[in-house]
Amino acid sequence: MTLSVALIGATGYTGLELAKILSTHPDADLTVATARAEAGQAISHVHPSLVGRVDLELEELDPASIAGRCDVAMCCLPHAASAETVKQLVEAGVRVIDFSADFRLSSLETYETWYDVKHPWPERVGKTVYGLPEFFADKIADADVVANPGCYPTSAILPLAPLVREGLVETGDIIVDSKSGVSGAGRSAKVATLYCETNESIAAYSVGCHRHQPEIEDLVQRISGRPTEVIFTPHLTPMSRGILSTIYVRPSGGSESTTKAVERVMQCWRDCYANSPFVTAVDHLPATAHVLGTNYVQMAVRRAGDRLVLLSAIDNLAKGASGAAVQNMNVMFGFSQRAGLV
Amino acid sequence: MTLSVALIGATGYTGLELAKILSTHPDADLTVATARAEAGQAISHVHPSLVGRVDLELEELDPASIAGRCDVAMCCLPHAASAETVKQLVEAGVRVIDFSADFRLSSLETYETWYDVKHPWPERVGKTVYGLPEFFADKIADADVVANPGCYPTSAILPLAPLVREGLVETGDIIVDSKSGVSGAGRSAKVATLYCETNESIAAYSVGCHRHQPEIEDLVQRISGRPTEVIFTPHLTPMSRGILSTIYVRPSGGSESTTKAVERVMQCWRDCYANSPFVTAVDHLPATAHVLGTNYVQMAVRRAGDRLVLLSAIDNLAKGASGAAVQNMNVMFGFSQRAGLV
Amino acid sequence: MTLSVALIGATGYTGLELAKILSTHPDADLTVATARAEAGQAISHVHPSLVGRVDLELEELDPASIAGRCDVAMCCLPHAASAETVKQLVEAGVRVIDFSADFRLSSLETYETWYDVKHPWPERVGKTVYGLPEFFADKIADADVVANPGCYPTSAILPLAPLVREGLVETGDIIVDSKSGVSGAGRSAKVATLYCETNESIAAYSVGCHRHQPEIEDLVQRISGRPTEVIFTPHLTPMSRGILSTIYVRPSGGSESTTKAVERVMQCWRDCYANSPFVTAVDHLPATAHVLGTNYVQMAVRRAGDRLVLLSAIDNLAKGASGAAVQNMNVMFGFSQRAGLV
Amino acid sequence: MTLSVALIGATGYTGLELAKILSTHPDADLTVATARAEAGQAISHVHPSLVGRVDLELEELDPASIAGRCDVAMCCLPHAASAETVKQLVEAGVRVIDFSADFRLSSLETYETWYDVKHPWPERVGKTVYGLPEFFADKIADADVVANPGCYPTSAILPLAPLVREGLVETGDIIVDSKSGVSGAGRSAKVATLYCETNESIAAYSVGCHRHQPEIEDLVQRISGRPTEVIFTPHLTPMSRGILSTIYVRPSGGSESTTKAVERVMQCWRDCYANSPFVTAVDHLPATAHVLGTNYVQMAVRRAGDRLVLLSAIDNLAKGASGAAVQNMNVMFGFSQRAGLV
Repeated sequence: MTLSVALIGATGYTGLELAKILSTHPDADLTVATARAEAGQAISHVHPSLVGRVDLELEELDPASIAGRCDVAMCCLPHAASAETVKQLVEAGVRVIDFSADFRLSSLETYETWYDVKHPWPERVGKTVYGLPEFFADKIADADVVANPGCYPTSAILPLAPLVREGLVETGDIIVDSKSGVSGAGRSAKVATLYCETNESIAAYSVGCHRHQPEIEDLVQRISGRPTEVIFTPHLTPMSRGILSTIYVRPSGGSESTTKAVERVMQCWRDCYANSPFVTAVDHLPATAHVLGTNYVQMAVRRAGDRLVLLSAIDNLAKGASGAAVQNMNVMFGFSQRAGLV
Repeated sequence: MTLSVALIGATGYTGLELAKILSTHPDADLTVATARAEAGQAISHVHPSLVGRVDLELEELDPASIAGRCDVAMCCLPHAASAETVKQLVEAGVRVIDFSADFRLSSLETYETWYDVKHPWPERVGKTVYGLPEFFADKIADADVVANPGCYPTSAILPLAPLVREGLVETGDIIVDSKSGVSGAGRSAKVATLYCETNESIAAYSVGCHRHQPEIEDLVQRISGRPTEVIFTPHLTPMSRGILSTIYVRPSGGSESTTKAVERVMQCWRDCYANSPFVTAVDHLPATAHVLGTNYVQMAVRRAGDRLVLLSAIDNLAKGASGAAVQNMNVMFGFSQRAGLV
Repeated sequence: MTLSVALIGATGYTGLELAKILSTHPDADLTVATARAEAGQAISHVHPSLVGRVDLELEELDPASIAGRCDVAMCCLPHAASAETVKQLVEAGVRVIDFSADFRLSSLETYETWYDVKHPWPERVGKTVYGLPEFFADKIADADVVANPGCYPTSAILPLAPLVREGLVETGDIIVDSKSGVSGAGRSAKVATLYCETNESIAAYSVGCHRHQPEIEDLVQRISGRPTEVIFTPHLTPMSRGILSTIYVRPSGGSESTTKAVERVMQCWRDCYANSPFVTAVDHLPATAHVLGTNYVQMAVRRAGDRLVLLSAIDNLAKGASGAAVQNMNVMFGFSQRAGLV
Repeated sequence: MTLSVALIGATGYTGLELAKILSTHPDADLTVATARAEAGQAISHVHPSLVGRVDLELEELDPASIAGRCDVAMCCLPHAASAETVKQLVEAGVRVIDFSADFRLSSLETYETWYDVKHPWPERVGKTVYGLPEFFADKIADADVVANPGCYPTSAILPLAPLVREGLVETGDIIVDSKSGVSGAGRSAKVATLYCETNESIAAYSVGCHRHQPEIEDLVQRISGRPTEVIFTPHLTPMSRGILSTIYVRPSGGSESTTKAVERVMQCWRDCYANSPFVTAVDHLPATAHVLGTNYVQMAVRRAGDRLVLLSAIDNLAKGASGAAVQNMNVMFGFSQRAGLV
């Protein structure tokens, strides 16, 4: 039987990417798509790239009405607004994959400090599975709500977490320097993301204060059992899609060990991700183009002085958002993790 | 009297940029331009953007002939080939600004190890002034040869050197994560820099082994008097021009001092560059677009955990190459540093 | 049973795109991939975006050996070299889809004039089906060789041919102004397609003398039965993929008819392409981004003075090359035209 | 004595470009810059690329106050709002260069039809000089108001007008297919010009109904004395700056004359623009990169069937807007046309 999927908040880039992926999924169909201002329009009117591919009328969000018409809802709303809707959907009996940050962190206090809002469903904070099937597949399989990971955190946690868990790197001296395409900034009209503002230019932003820093620290700690601190600097890069994270770590045991450390890192990754179809440890230096439009992560490691440099590349809209959501959906409903994904 | 300038190796991006800058310089004229395969053609045939702006026939390189027709030569040849030509020009009585790495480093051994060639003029290694007028204006004024700085080193040395000299940061824990536009890779036909290979993609290269690492270390040490080690990672960014360097340092005195350290860094930069017209310490986060087509450097600093993050933006073809060369020429011939430069 | 596909000439952009499409095709597998200089390497070494997706060793081209290991060969070689290989493959019993121009034109003389070579297999010129399933599906189904269409011709023939056939536009006054992404220029190292040469710039090339002009004229005439002349101007556009053709035609019957003509064009297209899954007549103005990564064509029409302006958008590597080839393969082997295609 | 210039509406891309040009102009200084929401801020806060180059506080628009502090005002306001302000400035005794379309057309009726507003100063419509010094330098020299040309019109009028005037081309069959960078769409926040909407995509817009069509027709007619009709199609191209116009004309005298016509066109252009420092007839096919950041126009001509194809390239923010304005200012105040311009 084909799974019915509702897309809550269809007008952004993650909603569009989700609609595209689902249009080729062998076991799932998009049956509902909601939008506020655009309700009543065809989804292909808002996203002309869906002409011939997805034929659906956008409707206003009505959790009760949606409940009867879908097996799972993908919620692409802004934080806080999202938790509100997730709660209603769950109470109406719908399983939900939530793209917002509302259920990702362990600590309510950390959430309310960094996001500067009162959480609409505090009881579920710290009790919702984080949607990285590479580590939490069992819990995802049974979950009513899955917190879909942030894009930067995915690119940082996957290379870092197994190394920290195995004690291969020092936990107090980790620097994550990430470069993201502009789609990560969303599809609302802002001067800062106009073509002429971001084209032919690269710049850092939110240095030392980006909300994905506590998410990275929290998850590396949850996976490894070791308290971890990271310095995190995101950069806006003149490209539509992709994240490259360049991560500086110190191998445990000091600089004399860096030569062997490269081998140990590769082996640790291969062991950890042996059954993870999308995570690959590669010999070449990964470029974001190598994973463009796919759910893959490419990771590599190099020596530099007394440090190791970890490189990881993902597509921020695929493995960094909508691809990950479909991978989570596949786990929740017993499909192959690869179903519908490139 | 107008200065006569010879451009040796006119077909690349630095040669083109030099020709453009000189075409508006109030006190200097391009009088000779050389090229190998293209000798005999108009320079505007090779570079159609010079139509109406520069009218000169490319000629083969003949140091003796050039000597009588120029006051200064800008040498844009590959390393080793450059030193060979610089020697001939100097012996013919021409002052030279050399774009190659041949005379930048203090140590012949370091040069020959990293560049893997026998140096054609070893006597001058370690005895040639490094063309950063911000620190070496006096020596540049009298020099027969000036080693024009590398693009990445310029973006790293200017923010780092005064802080190291003043003892504000630890010298053993410096990470320079740099993002460069594609013009830094030159204008020769290579698959790796085809439009479709670099567009919509970012990747690191030469991780832990780029030749600009020893140059950064050497110069920071020469300026500050303190041995310094850096981890340096360059990235190829999908844009034509610009370098952004994100530099991670530890303030001396430990993490308790990071709050005040931001102020100290800004003050140190303002003091150090009070008389340097192109180096600006800014409050906003610099983007490469902010200095595009100019000789300016914009530098900023932020706290992140127990670190400081230094950001510096330059145009790799201007302050990172041809703009710096003209600034050096201005110093050598007693013009205002700003002459002909934006 | 799964179809076995050989890819002849795997190192270019069309080869890469083909390998990606086939990796998700439900009924076909890539079993052979050839390359000259790179024989012996993994295909994912040459194309790192195939890591985890296609696992195959590149081999030298040996038609006899290939014959036993594939049902169909996709030939991505340069013109003339291609015809040579196609002949050998056909003689060895392999059905072939040829990406070159060698078998597209009706006239040997036209071919040899425009391509300036002696044709290696002249007997088949004018007797090979042109791989546009929208018009030639019956012949494609039975063909041993299919001439895969040129990228620009696909973008021009699909909107033009039905209008000419129905007599809706004058055949002596057609202007095709096309804008292509840089991947159309191939993956060999050339200065003209370096990132810094094509980025932030648009220019026409081969004005009045591009080889796709006779191909467009030939095919519109073959489909419509009416001799047709076109003025064709291609432009290199700063993007990796996509072709937009802006086509200026005069409606038959003079300018008084332009108002109704828009309706007639839309109706003609809908009728002609009712059973063509990838050709869509749209109300919005198509952008190449709307069909990026897909096999779709979006076409629209507008009035301008006494003319009609036809707009058509395709992805030059998909419907303009490798997608079309897979669509042809699907027709040849009785699969749904949509199989494996987005 | 240095000229004092006021910039009215400083926050957009034309205002920024003007500030940059004036910062290197030998005979003019920017003394006033106005903005609404940003009044009170430093201009370099709104445009960080002006740090170190322009030091001025943005102020609210007050014509009376401005009058005493400037010799000329550059008005970069939206149409209708602009005419209102121009009137006040002129009445206060300030000479004005107006970037809007308010005073460009000959006919009030045409203006009010195409711009769909009541004109605030109808008396001056048809009595204001059009700021193309190549044709109207005498009137510009004496003008109190100069209507700075539209970007597309500049790229079309310069190649077309002399040919029409000399009777070299038919006036009833002209097609202008133009490709513009995104900066032409301005700096206000709109979804349509977000980076991810325009990157990697080209599309036509306003087909058959763009406001620059009547402007092109009006000016070609005014210059040539011959009524002229054009079909005009603008395209949004994935680059920040530049316009390429591909113009299809029929040589007078029929197709037998196309061979000689190329020569005649080149000669006509050379004669017409012999004293115009920025208009160049070139043999190569012009690319927008060839004129990037300059006030130059490059024009070429090719045969294609029975047509001629004219190509013209400009930088839309320079010769297409702010460069042209400074060129007009130079003419108004007796400087060399080249002063301050590259």
